[in-house]
Amino acid sequence: MSDPASPRQLRFDSDALAAFIDQSFPPAARPAFGRIVSVAPDHVRMQLDPGPDMIRPGGIVSGPTLMGLADVAAWAVVLAHVGPVAMAVTNSLAITFLRACQLDAVIADARLLKLGRRLATVDVRLWQGDEQRLVAQATVGYALP
Amino acid sequence: MSDPASPRQLRFDSDALAAFIDQSFPPAARPAFGRIVSVAPDHVRMQLDPGPDMIRPGGIVSGPTLMGLADVAAWAVVLAHVGPVAMAVTNSLAITFLRACQLDAVIADARLLKLGRRLATVDVRLWQGDEQRLVAQATVGYALP
Amino acid sequence: MSDPASPRQLRFDSDALAAFIDQSFPPAARPAFGRIVSVAPDHVRMQLDPGPDMIRPGGIVSGPTLMGLADVAAWAVVLAHVGPVAMAVTNSLAITFLRACQLDAVIADARLLKLGRRLATVDVRLWQGDEQRLVAQATVGYALP
Amino acid sequence: MSDPASPRQLRFDSDALAAFIDQSFPPAARPAFGRIVSVAPDHVRMQLDPGPDMIRPGGIVSGPTLMGLADVAAWAVVLAHVGPVAMAVTNSLAITFLRACQLDAVIADARLLKLGRRLATVDVRLWQGDEQRLVAQATVGYALP
Repeated sequence: MSDPASPRQLRFDSDALAAFIDQSFPPAARPAFGRIVSVAPDHVRMQLDPGPDMIRPGGIVSGPTLMGLADVAAWAVVLAHVGPVAMAVTNSLAITFLRACQLDAVIADARLLKLGRRLATVDVRLWQGDEQRLVAQATVGYALP
Repeated sequence: MSDPASPRQLRFDSDALAAFIDQSFPPAARPAFGRIVSVAPDHVRMQLDPGPDMIRPGGIVSGPTLMGLADVAAWAVVLAHVGPVAMAVTNSLAITFLRACQLDAVIADARLLKLGRRLATVDVRLWQGDEQRLVAQATVGYALP
Repeated sequence: MSDPASPRQLRFDSDALAAFIDQSFPPAARPAFGRIVSVAPDHVRMQLDPGPDMIRPGGIVSGPTLMGLADVAAWAVVLAHVGPVAMAVTNSLAITFLRACQLDAVIADARLLKLGRRLATVDVRLWQGDEQRLVAQATVGYALP
Repeated sequence: MSDPASPRQLRFDSDALAAFIDQSFPPAARPAFGRIVSVAPDHVRMQLDPGPDMIRPGGIVSGPTLMGLADVAAWAVVLAHVGPVAMAVTNSLAITFLRACQLDAVIADARLLKLGRRLATVDVRLWQGDEQRLVAQATVGYALP
């Protein structure tokens, strides 16, 4: 085995990963999950342009919208490294909301913290405008088959 | 102050709470959040009948659907005790997924663990069929204004 | 397989579990972990009588003391059901602190939420004086070998 | 107010922060918390050299030891920015254990994700040998007075 701390090899490029995600969810659910911006070793970036059905009281983007984005971005970075055969299921997700999320583009940076044989752990940071201006941080655990 | 460990007084009954939730979210988002089943001191029960747009790969109910249900149930039990004036925002949510969620009714039992002046903490258990057969457990923190 | 929602069989009684925990940790670390009060299907209760080295600023019991107690109680309820052969390691722990913990006995109630083949999830509630008066709640995930 | 995403001003240098932590805990508890390596805007690094009483079954550093280190490192980075007057208490801590922790030096990098008026959120990464080789990641929430 290679050093587990070294960057891992990709099994999907950006277009192939986007196509795989598209075909994995019902079309009605798809818009809520945003789109792939880039795929790199240990890192997938996604972007969501929130729609009017994603608003919560106060005119801000709802928590469930952000949790859905964090979850799909974490899933995408796992898939990018294990490929389409594996059926990963979310085991746990812990999110902290840091700032109100405005009705603008939200970026999700999902980075692999550890890709084990049975469990993968992903750090996801959601931000708007400036990478340092976080809207939320999530740590997501995936069980691999 | 009353003993913080004693049951707290309700500010909403079931119908009023349901009406308040209905008016707080966009109609398009509303079906994803389920409906109020019962409201009691320290406890709100909700039920979601998952639709076809809530499916994820494997034909099971998606994680974001369950996180959205846990979040709204936690919000409902906080509102039930602080009333409509307060604008509570989710501060953190930690969920563990325990079993695949089938395309059947999902019950969410949200119970107040602590209602402080500035923070409320809620335990949410999602189950299908049998109260002991958990689909997920979440601990949700709310910041009170 | 038996119904996963039914109570599980015990592999340890209270004395055997206490002896196994005693021999598993260095004697110097042992006092920080409390003692077994009772062992029942899906439930282990432990008690910690905090010592002067467990205090944090403000004269209250420190967070790390409570996290250690939650972790060992969760480990104990897993061991009670999988037996001494299995080497369970903590995968994740999410704790919310709800009230200041006084220098009195702390009870930890650890309950199995799910005992799967590869992962176990445990709910732990720490309280003082009254079962409803929670000091902290933790959800602990264990990876089974 | 300054831009909340900009680096924040320090209220403590490394020596002053170390002295404040030393006087805040009982001497008997102090060794378990490691020592300050560096203090910079939004970032405190600590180091723990684990002792024989910090071992768990398997000869590795115990989870409670790592949780205690994560907690004190998160507290240190908050203190470094709010100063000695403020009495911050841990509100929540969510940790994922990623690799077995050997009996060698453990580094804790605590970084402020958000320093609000009432809540601070800190990302803590524990590693050995190589910054990319994480032993654990924790997200810690502090309530500010």
